[in-house]
This record gives sequence, C-alpha cells and structure tokens, in this order.
Amino acid sequence: MDLFQKCIDFTRADEAKQSGLYPYFRPIEENEGPIVHIEGRRFIMAGSNNYLGLTAHPRVRQAALDAIQKYGTGCSGSRYLTGTLDLHVLLEERLAKFLNKEAVLLFSTGYQTALGVIGALVERGDYVISDKENHASIMSACILAKGGFAEFKRFKHSDINDLEEVLKKLPAKAGKLVVTDGVFSTDGEISNLPEIIKVTHKYGGRVLVDDAHSVGVIGKGGRGTASHFGVEAETDLIMGTFSKTFASLGGFVAGPERIINYLKHHSAALIFSASPTPPSVAAALEALSILEEHPELVDQLQDNVKYLRKKFTDAGFKINQNESAIIPILVGETEKTLITWRKLYDQGVFVNAFIPPGVPPNMSIIRTSYMSSHKKEHLDEIFGIFLKVSEEVGYIRD
Amino acid sequence: MDLFQKCIDFTRADEAKQSGLYPYFRPIEENEGPIVHIEGRRFIMAGSNNYLGLTAHPRVRQAALDAIQKYGTGCSGSRYLTGTLDLHVLLEERLAKFLNKEAVLLFSTGYQTALGVIGALVERGDYVISDKENHASIMSACILAKGGFAEFKRFKHSDINDLEEVLKKLPAKAGKLVVTDGVFSTDGEISNLPEIIKVTHKYGGRVLVDDAHSVGVIGKGGRGTASHFGVEAETDLIMGTFSKTFASLGGFVAGPERIINYLKHHSAALIFSASPTPPSVAAALEALSILEEHPELVDQLQDNVKYLRKKFTDAGFKINQNESAIIPILVGETEKTLITWRKLYDQGVFVNAFIPPGVPPNMSIIRTSYMSSHKKEHLDEIFGIFLKVSEEVGYIRD
Repeated sequence: MDLFQKCIDFTRADEAKQSGLYPYFRPIEENEGPIVHIEGRRFIMAGSNNYLGLTAHPRVRQAALDAIQKYGTGCSGSRYLTGTLDLHVLLEERLAKFLNKEAVLLFSTGYQTALGVIGALVERGDYVISDKENHASIMSACILAKGGFAEFKRFKHSDINDLEEVLKKLPAKAGKLVVTDGVFSTDGEISNLPEIIKVTHKYGGRVLVDDAHSVGVIGKGGRGTASHFGVEAETDLIMGTFSKTFASLGGFVAGPERIINYLKHHSAALIFSASPTPPSVAAALEALSILEEHPELVDQLQDNVKYLRKKFTDAGFKINQNESAIIPILVGETEKTLITWRKLYDQGVFVNAFIPPGVPPNMSIIRTSYMSSHKKEHLDEIFGIFLKVSEEVGYIRD
Repeated sequence: MDLFQKCIDFTRADEAKQSGLYPYFRPIEENEGPIVHIEGRRFIMAGSNNYLGLTAHPRVRQAALDAIQKYGTGCSGSRYLTGTLDLHVLLEERLAKFLNKEAVLLFSTGYQTALGVIGALVERGDYVISDKENHASIMSACILAKGGFAEFKRFKHSDINDLEEVLKKLPAKAGKLVVTDGVFSTDGEISNLPEIIKVTHKYGGRVLVDDAHSVGVIGKGGRGTASHFGVEAETDLIMGTFSKTFASLGGFVAGPERIINYLKHHSAALIFSASPTPPSVAAALEALSILEEHPELVDQLQDNVKYLRKKFTDAGFKINQNESAIIPILVGETEKTLITWRKLYDQGVFVNAFIPPGVPPNMSIIRTSYMSSHKKEHLDEIFGIFLKVSEEVGYIRD
C-alpha cells in the first residue's frame, strides 16, 4: 500500500466542510482580545487561552517592537550554538524567581518542551507514567521516550489509587517520572497534585506538572498549581508555555539547577531547534512583569469565571466547579455538538468543539475559556446566546 | 536509581567551563548580521544560518513590526482552533507557489515539522527509512514514529546502494517514507536526491527531503535541492524551516494537497501546538518576497562561499567542494577542536565546534557557515585568523 493512500482515503474533513459543520482553521483577521474579526464579522471570543488578555497589551506590544529593533526578527540558531541572547538568559532568571525554583530552561514551543524534558530525562530502564488525559504534547513525549527504549505506563485520569497500583508494580530501583497536567486542557479539571506527589515520592519517583493552563490563572498571583496547593517545594519539575497567559510562543521547565543543566546538554528538542525569537522572548518577559505588578488581573479572571460558572450552574448545565478558566459544556453527540458550534458561530460567539477522537464517544463538548479582559457585558452576551442555542438544539441540563 | 541521578552525575560541561573550553550558550547582545556583540566584544559571525542576512533587513523588520501592531504578539491557540490568521494562509499559498507544490502547511518550529510530518504519516505497518546522518529533528521524528509502532530503518550516509539493500528487504506492500537532508547540516554535503528518488520510487516508496539548509542557498533563485537537480516534480514532499534563510522561526512542508489536508487533521505537532506568531509569519513572508525579488542575494552568497572555498583549498585544508553555505574544517581530536574554537573566539571569530557524540570519534570539526551579507573584508579576516590559529594548533592539511 502506498504511504499516501491513507491521505487519499481521508474524506471526513471534506464532508464536514460540505455540510457547513467544519469548525477548524478559521482565519482570524483582527484580534482585540475579547473581540475578534473572522470572515469580515465581529465575534466575542470564548475560546482563547489568552487568559490575561496580554497579546494586545500596549506594554507587551512595545517590548516586542523594541526587541525587533535591537535584535532582529529571529535568532537563526539554537540556544546551544548561535541562538542565545541576553534576553533568553534574563527571562530564565526572572521565571525561576517567580516560580521559586533554582533554574529555568526555555524551549521554542510548549509542545516541544514536553518532548525536550521527557525525551531527555526518561531513558532506557526508566519509566514515564502519564495521566490518561494529559495533554497531547505529553502523550507525544511519552511515545518519543518509548521509541527511545524507555518504558511508558499510564494511569486512570486523576485516579491516585490507580497511580499507586501502577507504581507498585514497577522495579523499586528504576527511575520514574510521573507526569500530570496541572489544569487539564480539555475539561479544566485541576489535578490533585499534593496526592500525586505523595504517592510518587513514596515509590521514589519524580513529578513533572504541566502548568500550561495554570500559570496566570490559579495559585498565588497566578503562580500555578503547586502554589495553588502550597506544594511548591515538593514539586520536582514544573513546565509551562508562553502561548497562553504570556502572550507569546515558547515553553519552559523549572526545577533544580542540576536537572536544568543536564537538559541543556541532552535535550534534542532544545539543542537542535532554533531559539525563541527576540519579540517572543521580550513579550513573555513583559507579560511576566505585568503579572508580577498586577496580580489583580488574576483576580479579575477569577471573578469572570466565578460569575459565568454561577450562571451556567443556575441554568442547569453540568459544568466543572473549580478555579480554572476553562468551562466545558457537555453536549454528548458529535453532530449535536457541531450544530451547537455552528449556531454559536452564526450568532457571533467563537468557541471550540471537542469531538472524538479528542474526547470519548458520546462525550463531545463545547469548550469555552475566558479572559480577564472580558467585560461583564461580553460574559452576559456569551451566556445569553449559549442559552438560546442550547434550547434550540436541546441538550443535557438538569 | 533516582531519575535525577544521571543529572547529578553529569559534570562534563562544568569541567569544560572550568578549563575555558566551553563553546555553548554564549549570549549575544547585539546582532548586525555579519557582526555580533558577545560579552561586550565585537565578533565576525561565521556560524549563523542567517544565510541571506535577512534577520536585520529593514523590510523584514518593518513587516514584523506591522504584524505586531495589527495582530498582537502571539496567537494563544493552535492553527486548528483559534490560532489561524489570514497571514498563515497567505504564507502557505505563497510558499506553495514558490516551491511549485500544490499546498504547504506551516509548523511552529523546524524541529516540530519533522515530528509532525513523519509522526503523522508513518503508522503501524509503515516504514520510515532515514539517512544515518540526517538532522537530529528527523532522528527524533523517526524515534517518535517507532514509539507509535511504525518501523524505523536507516541507511549508510549518502549510500544509494545501501538504501536499495534496505528497501529490497521490506515488504513490497508496506508504506515507505525515505527521508534525507537536502544539504546535510553538519558537513554541508548535498544529497544525491535524483538517485534517492529513483531507487525509492522503484520500491513503491515516497521521498521527503529536508531543505532547511538548501532554500535560499541552492537551486534556481534559492528554491532548494529539488530545483538544484531539476527533480521538483518527482520529489514527493519538501520540508524546511523559517529560522535560517527566512529570518524567523517555524517550519513548513510542501506537497500534494491531499497529503497536506491529511496532515492538517492528523499531525499532533500541528494540532496541539500554538501557531507561529504574527511577527514570525510576517517576517517569513517578507523574506520570501525579498528572495523572489532579489535572486542576486543567492548569487552573492554563492560568490562568497566560492571565494572562501578556494582560499581554504589553496591553503591545503580538506573541505567539501560543493555549493552549500557550510564549510566544515576537519580538526580531528576533540581537545584540539575546542582549543581551536577558543583561539578563534579570543580573536573575534565566532564559529561552531562539533565534537562527539555530534560527530564520530576523532572527527571533530569547526563548522563555519556564511551569509550573502558578508563583505570580502569579513571573509578575508575570517580566513586570515583561521589560518593563523590552525598553524598555532597544528592540524590536518595536505
């Protein structure tokens, strides 16, 4: 069979396009934070990870502009060779301080961070143990580690007992890395990090938490999951991204200096990839400064999601009840979900439809996410349209 | 054994730092193309992949500045969901036209491009067959595919007979992807793409060529390896990067529309990663326009490497004799190579030292690379200092 045959046989996307129920790759023409323009129309954005609305912040923009003037548009090399700027080093130092960790290492994307950390740390004879619903970047990283002769195990989603069952069966002397999302990217659930750390350390393992959806959202001043639970010192490694709260692109891992030093010299995803661009690093740095100076942005985001959670709950929707900025609304059937997405789209609300294989069969959701820069009128408009659409389509409410 | 023990045991980098022979992670403070500033000193850069010197080009800078004003500093989402801008679609269309391919798909880094293409196309039952000296991103991608139950084979570097030996033994009906660098990143060798295509197609396989170091350097108007050999139509897939000639960060794959469409809906490295930033996409677009309008930049680069190749050859150095912009100088012993690097560094020439495990034992090299923006006086200065250092250290010349 020709390698390309599977591509020629793949027609699902064409069919969805023909039926008008294709929600993906919609090109955005303008972005003012809560309001975006797509296909010449105005939308309220309820599906971005721009949690503190900083991609459009004047200080963030100015920092990126200045960096282009000083350093140019790209680095043309990896951190290892010709792609390290003083800016990279500064962001690493500032983030380490912010997260109360000894050292930080930057990567060029969040996706690559997972591959770079797990792929380098977990070798032949070691085990990586992943929550079954961890982000796809962690799944890719575990598959990469497995391809490199490491052992790859999974535990049931947020199930500490199952994690212990898995750990119990592994050789006592083997190196073990347990990986969990801090806030799960699909359903916005917050992991039980203190229990994960307790059971992992009991079996001599180390914990890596992915704070992509946590930094800027939960914890003291937006310091993420470990801070949220008061377990910063016990959390071995924290990774995160710059493409959400930090208004940029890239990722980072924070941890003990010796581990970061090892990764700097062993991580293929670091050594063989061009470094984050000057405007991206400068934007993330400025976003970090704003976050440090204005913790009230995190409070504003918390107020927003609290306000909407109450509205959704009062109206009988089954949603998560926590402090994450992600509110998924369970629709169930795939087609109903795509019809809901389409109706919301037609009425000017942009959200994300998660359908199988991204979620289990009959568990399709409309994933909504919020920003500190949403005003109450935006939130009311989103909720009003949602309520109307849900009644038209007809779905799960108490 | 604690997972972290290997990190605590790793002291090679500390020792190199103590002896003053540590060439990595040097922070650059200013970058004017051929001249950079590191640790307060002026250097001639002879180790960047900024082949056409476009990271500092006023038009490229302006395009990036304008994009920040219009779109902000980052996209806060993946191409799939909320991270597609009209700019991304435009760059894909323009690149497809430039490379004479039906369609193009962007990725957020070059490293991720290899993972996204190979990881999605080569599944259980399929084979990926890689040149042993392909770039590390291709190696990572093959390991990822293997972790995902695909079969991973390698062939001897640039050895068509060995490639045929490998292909001959594989099941006739299995899907096969043969991957080769267009210009090999370490030694600057140009692959024998026409022969690779011939033998691969004979066995029903497909060819993916990595043009990271080829676009902007070889081929008609810098169109890369397939164009260099006149085999554009026969080359199934071309991938490349924006962090070299294109003055930016990101990567792309070009090929038939059906294959690109499949990758858009199956590639984890695409779907689960934030999209390239507005300034990065705008910079790459403007760099592409400059490349199309000014093919003489490629000629200038060719003149520069021809000029230096003659000087190195006349002085008895063993170097590659081709049209790539990479000239590696074989030193042999690791320590001699690091001493050479240090002496060049002390005298204001920045190059890259490649030592084991990056190269085979006793095959350490000083890898130099050139830009169209190097002036003759820069090249003469680089060569003069190199000659002096090589005489001080004493190494392989005829």
